[in-house]
Amino acid sequence: MWTFDNPPVKQLEERYHFTPTQQWLDHVRLSCVRLNDGGSGSFVSAHGLLLTNHHVARGQLQKNSTAERDYVKNGFYAATPDQEMKSPDLEVNVLMSMENVTQAVVAALKGAKTPAEEFTKRKAAIADIERESMQKTGLRSDVVTLYQGGEYWLYSYKKYTDVRLVFAPEDQAAFFGGDPDNFTYPRYDLDMALFRVYENGKPLDTKDHLKWNAKGAGDNELVFVPGHPGSTQRLDTVAQLEYDRDYAEPIILKLLKHRVEVLNQYGAQGTEQARQVASNIFGLQNSVKAIEGRYKGLLDKNVMDKKRKDDEDFRAKVMANPEWKQAYGGAWDAIAEATRKAASRAKQQFYRSTDSQLGGTAATIVDYVAEIKKPDGERLAGYHEAQLDSMRQRLFSRAPTYPAMEIARMTGALEADVAELGADDPFLKIVLDGRSPKEAATALVNGTKMADPAVRKQLVDGGEAAVAASTDAMIVLQRKLDPLRREMIKWQEDNVQSVQQEAGEKLGKARFAAYGKTTYPDATFTLRLSYGQVKGYPMNGTEAPYKTTFYGLFDRAASFDFDGPFYLPSRYKEGRDKLDLATPLDFVTTNDIIGGNSGSPVINRNAEIVGLIFDGNIESLVGDFVYDGTTNRAVAVHTAGMTEALRKLYGTDRVVEELLGE
Amino acid sequence: MWTFDNPPVKQLEERYHFTPTQQWLDHVRLSCVRLNDGGSGSFVSAHGLLLTNHHVARGQLQKNSTAERDYVKNGFYAATPDQEMKSPDLEVNVLMSMENVTQAVVAALKGAKTPAEEFTKRKAAIADIERESMQKTGLRSDVVTLYQGGEYWLYSYKKYTDVRLVFAPEDQAAFFGGDPDNFTYPRYDLDMALFRVYENGKPLDTKDHLKWNAKGAGDNELVFVPGHPGSTQRLDTVAQLEYDRDYAEPIILKLLKHRVEVLNQYGAQGTEQARQVASNIFGLQNSVKAIEGRYKGLLDKNVMDKKRKDDEDFRAKVMANPEWKQAYGGAWDAIAEATRKAASRAKQQFYRSTDSQLGGTAATIVDYVAEIKKPDGERLAGYHEAQLDSMRQRLFSRAPTYPAMEIARMTGALEADVAELGADDPFLKIVLDGRSPKEAATALVNGTKMADPAVRKQLVDGGEAAVAASTDAMIVLQRKLDPLRREMIKWQEDNVQSVQQEAGEKLGKARFAAYGKTTYPDATFTLRLSYGQVKGYPMNGTEAPYKTTFYGLFDRAASFDFDGPFYLPSRYKEGRDKLDLATPLDFVTTNDIIGGNSGSPVINRNAEIVGLIFDGNIESLVGDFVYDGTTNRAVAVHTAGMTEALRKLYGTDRVVEELLGE
Repeated sequence: MWTFDNPPVKQLEERYHFTPTQQWLDHVRLSCVRLNDGGSGSFVSAHGLLLTNHHVARGQLQKNSTAERDYVKNGFYAATPDQEMKSPDLEVNVLMSMENVTQAVVAALKGAKTPAEEFTKRKAAIADIERESMQKTGLRSDVVTLYQGGEYWLYSYKKYTDVRLVFAPEDQAAFFGGDPDNFTYPRYDLDMALFRVYENGKPLDTKDHLKWNAKGAGDNELVFVPGHPGSTQRLDTVAQLEYDRDYAEPIILKLLKHRVEVLNQYGAQGTEQARQVASNIFGLQNSVKAIEGRYKGLLDKNVMDKKRKDDEDFRAKVMANPEWKQAYGGAWDAIAEATRKAASRAKQQFYRSTDSQLGGTAATIVDYVAEIKKPDGERLAGYHEAQLDSMRQRLFSRAPTYPAMEIARMTGALEADVAELGADDPFLKIVLDGRSPKEAATALVNGTKMADPAVRKQLVDGGEAAVAASTDAMIVLQRKLDPLRREMIKWQEDNVQSVQQEAGEKLGKARFAAYGKTTYPDATFTLRLSYGQVKGYPMNGTEAPYKTTFYGLFDRAASFDFDGPFYLPSRYKEGRDKLDLATPLDFVTTNDIIGGNSGSPVINRNAEIVGLIFDGNIESLVGDFVYDGTTNRAVAVHTAGMTEALRKLYGTDRVVEELLGE
Repeated sequence: MWTFDNPPVKQLEERYHFTPTQQWLDHVRLSCVRLNDGGSGSFVSAHGLLLTNHHVARGQLQKNSTAERDYVKNGFYAATPDQEMKSPDLEVNVLMSMENVTQAVVAALKGAKTPAEEFTKRKAAIADIERESMQKTGLRSDVVTLYQGGEYWLYSYKKYTDVRLVFAPEDQAAFFGGDPDNFTYPRYDLDMALFRVYENGKPLDTKDHLKWNAKGAGDNELVFVPGHPGSTQRLDTVAQLEYDRDYAEPIILKLLKHRVEVLNQYGAQGTEQARQVASNIFGLQNSVKAIEGRYKGLLDKNVMDKKRKDDEDFRAKVMANPEWKQAYGGAWDAIAEATRKAASRAKQQFYRSTDSQLGGTAATIVDYVAEIKKPDGERLAGYHEAQLDSMRQRLFSRAPTYPAMEIARMTGALEADVAELGADDPFLKIVLDGRSPKEAATALVNGTKMADPAVRKQLVDGGEAAVAASTDAMIVLQRKLDPLRREMIKWQEDNVQSVQQEAGEKLGKARFAAYGKTTYPDATFTLRLSYGQVKGYPMNGTEAPYKTTFYGLFDRAASFDFDGPFYLPSRYKEGRDKLDLATPLDFVTTNDIIGGNSGSPVINRNAEIVGLIFDGNIESLVGDFVYDGTTNRAVAVHTAGMTEALRKLYGTDRVVEELLGE
């Protein structure tokens, strides 16, 4: 997960006799995009055609679907350009430049006497840098913290919001095997979707795009994954990992599993209800399985022993140097103390929630009108000047909401809150106000107009006065909850975040001092370049192959009697004889990736696209903490499989021609 | 693994509402056979047609093959009855009766003052029972030790030695996936072979045979596996398991891996050499993988903790009852002491070997002429009157030997012996006699005529005088080694076996006293009945299906680019379109099986054959010590897959008609 300013040139030359030129790096960077729904993608034609995963596009598919037209279930294809379908609230970013702003941020901290003071100054400095950059360049400008604060970088993105859907397969083809097969391999998924980015109503001119290599990746081939890994915790101290193991992970797992249950109950009421909850359940189950894998890693004695040893070696190295000891030695204890404090309010942090989309929107509006009146540097996170555009795009989204589902989710969440926090928790006293969870949820959802984008816009435009005067049930509730929410944020900042940021910076500097800049920073949902090889691995007492084929799709379906998550869309059953079943469908590589990399292209030395990342294997789930190349694998769709399916099953001739440059 | 005298009637009634009648049990028992090559089988037509695994038949295929006709590689089919091919030395047994002889054995021990005295008396008593039964019934008569000596049973077998091959597929179809896929699932193997048993030159009339059910087994179906599990150690004490873990298993693993290396080097010399060693390598790799799985189980803290707890609970229960404590309480310490002694000579026990087939034959002849002059009860194990017939069948086998391969094996073994025991070991001083391993091996193999069955017969018929006068190099060597071998046997009997047998008997009785006869005895390569269900299981983060299909065979082959152990025989590649690829090929059941069960039929409630056991999954390898139904699975070929392949790929019409009773 190397940053593009520090590519692993030496390793690539030594191991693969390959030297990525600056031109190669720039071309790849400009061909790649970040999707703010939480994934990655790449341009695959000169006319803005954008390849990503079905599961990244899924939220937009769901938002465009209705009871009559279910694009998630049935897929979508725009047979002509004018049929390409606008996404309700998808933002796409292309990284235009990177600038090291560490000195500016560090300089701004001078004179701060406590971590909390530092926190305030740092926040203000970062907001300044972002706003100034945005005003100067017109680009989305994010200051990124790398190496836990060892470095700060200003990343500037070209932003696109007119993103139209061109093609998506049936959910069942993209996600064949469902939750059981999720995060595993061998896999047989066509987890792809194609968007087209428009600018000024016309397809974007994308000179920088990846050439489609329909032959795809071969065994042992050197490949790269440029993309946006979301978050890792490889540089965390043992105290932080123990906090995750003993507090955060078990609390979150319980909470998410309960939410899945609630949605399953709602979905069981009928076909339309099932459609409404499908993508939410998908997302939650995905999180549950990922977190369970991570949690299992934290509970694994071998993993924790290794982390403990690394941490102790690092600490001993720092302590052995008087200068380092003086400057950085206190960081470990400071972090440990901060995690102890975080633990004391962990349940409140996670459970004070109504799990309501309408409630969340109302809370954002209440905060928005207050925050934008403050100086930029003093605002809550998310409300800085440079962030407002993206926030408004989400806030005014025309994505549908479903009142009955909102009531069900909210009721479920409040019941869980009561069970975990007790009905006397101030948050619950305000929300319930003497009512049962179901009564409160029903009254709140029925008493709000938050589902209407126009109402939201009115309130935002009306500012504090409009919000203060509103009698909308959700707005009223969020006004009452606001002080509680702010108290929690402040407490977190003062006791946990500020301490961890200050100590993290020390550890980042200490790491540079002790080991040099020999590794890459933890993932931060910013563009990274990973290199690796197409390669099978030891599994289940035998070997997992480097690729799978369409034969395997039919085998796995038939092996489960075409039942449950293993049913085959009729297009596949009926179209079988059109396919060359030996065509590669999915494959695995040793590339180090993590959630957020979904939709990243897999490219070869010539920067041609040979695959599409969509998952990691079960052995990769511990990758949040450690990467083990023996069995950790990224799972990708093969370009040969995509080409075969697009051409022979989906008949998307105009797209295939565009991909192949025909 | 229930014995047929004590079937799990209660469990079957409670869980499955199925009551096996005595008639059902007798019919199944008489339809099943033991193959003395180390496997199981069953009659599947009224005319002696016998189904077993390719890998059980493999030894006979290898022995019938030559440089010109490789039946292992190419398979075999007798298109007409007269083409059915005699096996060189295959003995088949059908269990005709079982008689509890515990009282007779126990009564014979009276007056013995030491374990060693008991050992002698027990041996004599057993030899007497076996010989008398054989003389009375003409049947092969074996006294079997069950429940570690809690019971002794006389098993009488009808024996057949005219066993002819009818059909075997290509090795690569039977063992697709090779060593990597061995002991794993999902699998795609047609691991089947058909023999026909003849009596008096005519196909045996087999009224009792299993009806072929070409539909095969369905998901969750109740199924039975009648067969001959070889050996388990579930009732062993922790001291015995620790001996295996710390001595036996690591020593054997190292030894076997070295032997594989030696054979691989020999086989690398050319096609014919590769052919000669193929089945030996197959067998050794199979053992290595099985033992590695077992060894891993012994090294697994969870497994050993469970065994320790069970053992401690049992011991505490015995110790809490004064009478039991007095009678059985000393057994644990006695066994522990015996294992300590065994450990002191473990390396000698395993490494004093020339790994030579010709040497082994010579040693048997040297012992044979001496032993048969003794009273039956005093002879070495294997030379008792009731065992001589079977021994002579093996001794005079016309199976080929390959001098160059013998020299290579012997050289390799002697080199390992020197490395492990030191050249001063008395065994090596005799064998090497100042020569290098290679010189000694070359001289011995070139100086022997043991490869000729007529020479062997001459020596055996000539008795002690002929053997004493022989100048055959191997006979001369084995004469010199004989005292060493006898000293080791005697030492083992006095210090280990006799103690463990006496203590084992006590533990067997203690177990009956403490728990009743609620479980089945450890496996003893005698007929057992296992019940279970067709069922997938959690695997690799997802679910393994209950069955696989021909699609999967093509997928796995294509996924490895049809390379190495995953190549597809041309018959499959070319015949693909003849097959219904969705036909089930293999499947898994929860039946508790172990090595020796290979070739056992899987039958349904109607005693129809629905599958053919050929392996266990990787999770089953710890089954030597514990059975865990969550993931332990038996792997079987599906009758639908066999029918499909026989009919459409192999064109064995006359066999299919016979199987289907058409």
